[in-house]
Amino acid sequence: MISLPQAMQKLIREFSRLPSIGEKSATRLAYHLVNHDKQLALSLSDALRKAAESVKLCQRCFYLTEEDLCTICKNPSRDQSLICLVEKPADLMAIERVGEFRGLYHVLHGLWAPLRGQGPESMKLQELLERLKDGVIREVIIATGSTVEGDATALYVAKMLSDFGVQSTRLAQGMPKGGELEYADDVTLSRAFAGRNLINP
Amino acid sequence: MISLPQAMQKLIREFSRLPSIGEKSATRLAYHLVNHDKQLALSLSDALRKAAESVKLCQRCFYLTEEDLCTICKNPSRDQSLICLVEKPADLMAIERVGEFRGLYHVLHGLWAPLRGQGPESMKLQELLERLKDGVIREVIIATGSTVEGDATALYVAKMLSDFGVQSTRLAQGMPKGGELEYADDVTLSRAFAGRNLINP
Repeated sequence: MISLPQAMQKLIREFSRLPSIGEKSATRLAYHLVNHDKQLALSLSDALRKAAESVKLCQRCFYLTEEDLCTICKNPSRDQSLICLVEKPADLMAIERVGEFRGLYHVLHGLWAPLRGQGPESMKLQELLERLKDGVIREVIIATGSTVEGDATALYVAKMLSDFGVQSTRLAQGMPKGGELEYADDVTLSRAFAGRNLINP
Repeated sequence: MISLPQAMQKLIREFSRLPSIGEKSATRLAYHLVNHDKQLALSLSDALRKAAESVKLCQRCFYLTEEDLCTICKNPSRDQSLICLVEKPADLMAIERVGEFRGLYHVLHGLWAPLRGQGPESMKLQELLERLKDGVIREVIIATGSTVEGDATALYVAKMLSDFGVQSTRLAQGMPKGGELEYADDVTLSRAFAGRNLINP
C-alpha cells in the first residue's frame, strides 16, 4: 500500500469496514471508482450521505422511513387489527415481496439471545405492548426466524402477549417448497411430522 | 422495493452499479449502513468524494497520485534507466508488493484488443515514446498479463520499441510456484517447455 495516494488508502479502508467486503474487494472497488467511474463515486457518496441523514425508524412499527410514519403504517387500506412481528427490516421486505399479508408490522430490531448477551430489553417489545393497549389488535403473527433464537423469542413474546390477553400465532414450520426428504435436517423433518395436516381429497 | 424509503432505494441502486455487487448484496450493504452504522455511511461518503476529487494520474507514468508526479516517479533512489510496462494500476501494486523491482513504471491503461475495438491508440503509448526520447531508459520490461491480449500488446510494443532502438524484455512464462503438472493448462505447459532452463548442479 506504500505507493498508493492517501485518499485512495482511506477509501479502501472504509470499504473494508463493510460487511463481507475484504481488503482485496475493497481495493478493486476503489480502483474501479477512481480509475473508471468518478461519476459513480460522487453519486454513491451523495446517496450514502442522503440515506444516513434522512432515513430513520417509523415511530409506530420501527420499519425504515423518511417521515414520522412509514408507508405501511400510513396506508389506511391495510388491516389495522393484525400485526406481523419480525426481527429486522429485511424480513418485512421479504414478506412484502410475497404480497399476501395485508396487515401491519412491528420490527423488533433484535432477538432474545442470552448467549450473545441480548436480553428482552434489546428488542422493541415495550413499544409493541403500547400498540396493543387500545384493543384494536386481535392477533400478532410472530414471524421471527426458525432458529434457536427466533424460536426462543417467539415463545417469550407469545407468553407475554397471552398475559396481555392478545392472541399470537407462529409461522408454520415444515418442509420448504422443493425440499427433498433425503436432504432435510433432523429438526425440519421432526417439525414437519409434528405439524402434519389432514388431507381432504 | 415498494415500501422502502426513496433515499434507501437510491442507495441500493448506486451500490448495485459497483462491479460484482448485485441487488441482494447492495440491499444488505444499504441496510447495514442505515440501520447499524450511519457513522460509516458518512465516512465512506466523505472518502468517496475525496478520492474522486483528488486522485488523478501521474503526469509521467500514469499511475495514481494526488500530486503532479506519483511517489515512485518522485523517488530519486529508483533506477531511472529501467521502465516496467503494465496494463493497469493494480498490476503495478502487485509488483510493488513483491518489492524487488527498483526501476520506474509506465501504466498503459489498456491493452491492444482489436476484438473489443481497442486499438493501440487506446493505450498511453505515445507518452511512453516521449519518455524514451532522451536516451536515459536502457530497457523496458513488458509486464502485461499472459493472456491473448497481453501477449499481443507485448509483441506490438516490442516491435515499436525495437524500431525506436530501445531493448525490451518480457516476464518469463512457465509453471507457477506450487503448480501441479497434472492440472496445468496446455498453453502454460507448452510455454514451460519452450522456456526450459539448463540446470547447473
